Amino acid sequence: MIYEEKTMKSEKIYEGKILTVKVDTVELPDKKYSKREIVELSGAVAIVPITDNGDIIFVKQFRKATESVILEIPAGKLEINEEPLDCALRELKEETGYSAENMEYLFKYYTSPGFTNEVMHLFLATGIIYGEATPEDDEYIDVVRININEALEMIKNGEIKDGKTIIGILMAYEKLKFNEKE
Amino acid sequence: MIYEEKTMKSEKIYEGKILTVKVDTVELPDKKYSKREIVELSGAVAIVPITDNGDIIFVKQFRKATESVILEIPAGKLEINEEPLDCALRELKEETGYSAENMEYLFKYYTSPGFTNEVMHLFLATGIIYGEATPEDDEYIDVVRININEALEMIKNGEIKDGKTIIGILMAYEKLKFNEKE
Repeated sequence: MIYEEKTMKSEKIYEGKILTVKVDTVELPDKKYSKREIVELSGAVAIVPITDNGDIIFVKQFRKATESVILEIPAGKLEINEEPLDCALRELKEETGYSAENMEYLFKYYTSPGFTNEVMHLFLATGIIYGEATPEDDEYIDVVRININEALEMIKNGEIKDGKTIIGILMAYEKLKFNEKE
Repeated sequence: MIYEEKTMKSEKIYEGKILTVKVDTVELPDKKYSKREIVELSGAVAIVPITDNGDIIFVKQFRKATESVILEIPAGKLEINEEPLDCALRELKEETGYSAENMEYLFKYYTSPGFTNEVMHLFLATGIIYGEATPEDDEYIDVVRININEALEMIKNGEIKDGKTIIGILMAYEKLKFNEKE
């Protein structure tokens, strides 16, 4: 049974710098109406930068939404008309100072499709070259290196708390093991 | 360099059924001000129900936010004062009809900490017992069984597009392999 929810009314509540909020009135298959509260965001990219000896480069920053400092892989929002690959190269450089010889596209996914259309494009960066970070004016970021095996433990014990970072580490781990088998 | 963003002003934009939107004015370490657009949601749970022969039980439903039908693991929002474990048992039963002898807590994570405080509690359900689904009035859901090895391929080729589902499958895969080694 595949169906769609027909939009009967769409009310824009707020249009901000990074997000738009709307409330849609939808018609369900039984013809009843229901409300959907939706947050629209532009897409974003996240990068798993991994060195030849298996260290992942993380950034640590304060996130107002969670009122806490969070360990994350480098990431950022797509600018208008920007390609995900260009954004990945740019954000890696801005946030960590590092460049990558190889930037492999893994996949994109929805961060939380129950209420937002936000899409995250995930990249694996190898052939890492050191450089100086150039964060944006309102970004205060620390760069941290952690071995992938330790990072995996930090997922399991709850020290790594960010969705894209968890997916990135698990995918990098999958890839590395696959390469070992070859 | 660990710091916090001091809240100078907090403006509530919208308070809906499932989410609240606010715009905070914050003071950065250099004393400049910046705006943070934040979406507050109650926590949620997601469950990876896996059968003894390695099939994962998925639900397929239309998501208005993404205007598409998405394959997801069973999930739902915490009710007021509800414990994550109780919510996991309830949502698994409601959405799929299945019960689980063992509901193991894996961890919780932020779905997208750049703009929302939404927390997802992740559970692994084993010892699956069949039953009849009882979805809520505005939920139209199909139940789908897919083997974990096929599900892993569906992550890599982009057919599985939901963050919590990707994390759930990758964690279940890690666990199963670990058990095989023992």
